[in-house]
Amino acid sequence: MKKILFFLFSMPVLCLAQTADEAMLQKISDEILTNGNAYELLRQLTKGIGGRLAGSPQFAKAVQWGKTTLEQQGADKVWLQECMVPHWIRGGQDKAVITQIGDKKVNRPLDVLALGNSLGNGTVTAEVICVADFTELEKRKNEVKGKIVYYNHAFDPRFIKTFEAYGEAVVYRGAGPSRAAKYGAVGIMIRSMTESVANDPHTGGTRYNDSFPKIPAIAVGPRDADYVWEQGRKANLTMSMTTNGHFLPDTIGHNVIGELTGSEFPNEIITVGGHLDSWDVNEGATDDGTGIVHTVEIMRAMKALGIKPRHTIRFVFFANEENGLRGGTKYAQEAKAKNEKHIFALESDAGGFTPRGFSLQLSKEQLAKVRSWIPLLAKYGTNEISGDGGGADVGPLNRLLGTPVGELMPDSQRYFDVHHARTDVLENVNKRELSLGAVNMAGLIYLVDKYGL
Amino acid sequence: MKKILFFLFSMPVLCLAQTADEAMLQKISDEILTNGNAYELLRQLTKGIGGRLAGSPQFAKAVQWGKTTLEQQGADKVWLQECMVPHWIRGGQDKAVITQIGDKKVNRPLDVLALGNSLGNGTVTAEVICVADFTELEKRKNEVKGKIVYYNHAFDPRFIKTFEAYGEAVVYRGAGPSRAAKYGAVGIMIRSMTESVANDPHTGGTRYNDSFPKIPAIAVGPRDADYVWEQGRKANLTMSMTTNGHFLPDTIGHNVIGELTGSEFPNEIITVGGHLDSWDVNEGATDDGTGIVHTVEIMRAMKALGIKPRHTIRFVFFANEENGLRGGTKYAQEAKAKNEKHIFALESDAGGFTPRGFSLQLSKEQLAKVRSWIPLLAKYGTNEISGDGGGADVGPLNRLLGTPVGELMPDSQRYFDVHHARTDVLENVNKRELSLGAVNMAGLIYLVDKYGL
Repeated sequence: MKKILFFLFSMPVLCLAQTADEAMLQKISDEILTNGNAYELLRQLTKGIGGRLAGSPQFAKAVQWGKTTLEQQGADKVWLQECMVPHWIRGGQDKAVITQIGDKKVNRPLDVLALGNSLGNGTVTAEVICVADFTELEKRKNEVKGKIVYYNHAFDPRFIKTFEAYGEAVVYRGAGPSRAAKYGAVGIMIRSMTESVANDPHTGGTRYNDSFPKIPAIAVGPRDADYVWEQGRKANLTMSMTTNGHFLPDTIGHNVIGELTGSEFPNEIITVGGHLDSWDVNEGATDDGTGIVHTVEIMRAMKALGIKPRHTIRFVFFANEENGLRGGTKYAQEAKAKNEKHIFALESDAGGFTPRGFSLQLSKEQLAKVRSWIPLLAKYGTNEISGDGGGADVGPLNRLLGTPVGELMPDSQRYFDVHHARTDVLENVNKRELSLGAVNMAGLIYLVDKYGL
Repeated sequence: MKKILFFLFSMPVLCLAQTADEAMLQKISDEILTNGNAYELLRQLTKGIGGRLAGSPQFAKAVQWGKTTLEQQGADKVWLQECMVPHWIRGGQDKAVITQIGDKKVNRPLDVLALGNSLGNGTVTAEVICVADFTELEKRKNEVKGKIVYYNHAFDPRFIKTFEAYGEAVVYRGAGPSRAAKYGAVGIMIRSMTESVANDPHTGGTRYNDSFPKIPAIAVGPRDADYVWEQGRKANLTMSMTTNGHFLPDTIGHNVIGELTGSEFPNEIITVGGHLDSWDVNEGATDDGTGIVHTVEIMRAMKALGIKPRHTIRFVFFANEENGLRGGTKYAQEAKAKNEKHIFALESDAGGFTPRGFSLQLSKEQLAKVRSWIPLLAKYGTNEISGDGGGADVGPLNRLLGTPVGELMPDSQRYFDVHHARTDVLENVNKRELSLGAVNMAGLIYLVDKYGL
């Protein structure tokens, strides 16, 4: 009987709360879709500054832009958090040419980009050994010495979520050079990490194993990859590859941090962020300009609607996701050193496409709580709350402090069309899709701030 | 006790069925994502044939292409179904120029397209009356005589689904000319039906009311619309608009129909289709090339997997959606005349973007049944089965025969960026997104064929 009474009495309260939350989420959505500034800020960041690899002058310019932007949007406090960052530079135009097919001299240029962190010192000319994957490399390890290894491994198209195909393929970018160098290879080339129908090559960080020679590494555009694979399975190929990647000494970089101070729990922190650095060959629009402007837009909308968060919300532009994760690491280290209490951290680093949900790293109970909000968020795109984790820059907070973390999960079909390629430019971002990312993130942050995790 | 026994015994059967359906849907998805031919067919239709308005030589070429394609993909039968179609032609390049602002002569060209079905006969020069909407038009009806009316009404950005914003705004394209002609206007211009950040104008059919003069009608690109509105609210504008749209006599068109004959119920028909016609100013890639190649891909995948449908499945390319609906009407009329039994009809005419679900016109019980399949389809994108109806070309089947009908509901954010604009080209279709549309449609057709509605 008591239970029934509780149920009867609690119903209207629950309904009221639901209605109030529904109304607030509608207000947030209307504000962002009507007055949103994310696309204009993305235009400034991409067309005004462009590619901004950690250590570059463009990155320093982006830091100043970020500080000014957070100040102008009305953060209570804005500051720069210094951290040392690696300083890799491409050092010139990457080139590759097939110079011989069987007995025939040819001059067939390939569209390539050196992998980030790759070390190069001019031109390497050698026979190419074309392998499907590491299994074939191991079988043919005695043929590798003095040659350039080409790995043809492609995304498995059967994955519905392209990040899963990437997760399976990206080991060739990371470990491909050293696994070939172990057997005496003088260079490697990978098929670009994409399923795009275009031929643009896709760069991205590689990692050398210090036990083996650090040989130059390039990614080839997918249509040229088709050509190399077709020719290379029929006849011996010779290739010249020219790269000039090298490291300058580590340099000073900065996380840019803006804060709305909590009205009830100023010492309990919710972090929202993206990473400010990008690769050097594009505008870093989708990776991760969209994450940066999502972050600002959430703050702008909260200010515009007079939402005073109960907890402190930090809006963070991380310094160095692409080739070091030094920004995210520094942020977590300082949080730990200062004994800060972080209750949640959310990143946007999967693009500005229409949202489909969030990928979170939470306890089972916390996950169930967030999933109970799906009916509130579904209208705006969030149908799926997975427990798959995510958010590279917020990862260190989770590892060092145990902070619950997560990432916006937009539709992933187009992400790898532009990821780390020259085509990652403003023109490949849709204004409405971008805005909807901010709507869903702001909604989740609002609910976490109101109800906790 | 009996109930419990039934429950216990039925569980394994249900699980087995579920597992078999899951496995089949996975096979369909793998087949389409691995061996899919939709993008290549879309390349042929867009780059090989291009814009194909009903009555045009390109449309006739598309009919032949369609027939050959369905034959090559292994339909049991392929035939053409004749129907008369309207034959509107643009008649030249549409132009508009602002020639005077207040007292100042200017020469500011606007990017415009005549609306489909618009009648024009050269150049009209007149003062422009800029109104926000029909309400303002009615208030200022005494000022309209001898002028060109510009309607500034825009999409309401707050709608999450852009088709809802379109539904509210498109009345200006349809009724704008006659409502202004009623008060003596000599021409009209509308803001293009889009939220795009670009300036491309968007055409689309208008409908004259025979009671009023048939004045020429154009759509202006959204950035030029901003300009006209800004200037026109401050000073009097004069504009010259040049259009040459006119009708030739109705001509013969064709629906293209392919069939896989049902193994158990050959006389019970499931229709899947899209429309083969498009506007003349683009390649008709998204509207509705994607619907055509979705249709073919479903048949190709069924054949490749050896799926023998229980019911007859008709794969239909409708002749004339854009400016007449004559193809869909003819198909339903003939079905009625022959007393055919149609159990379901599904269209794809909302683009080749990542699917989010289906919009259906079914009884409550049928809708509940289809919704019970969401757990099977969600993995591939279908999270939402709405009862909002849809599918212009299958509409007549519903109205004449009471057939349950529906439409694929892809993500709608980018649809109106390209809809009826020059930018509706192959390059704005993503291969994976396109394939996933076919996966979800094939899955639904498979389930309807297996379990009925």
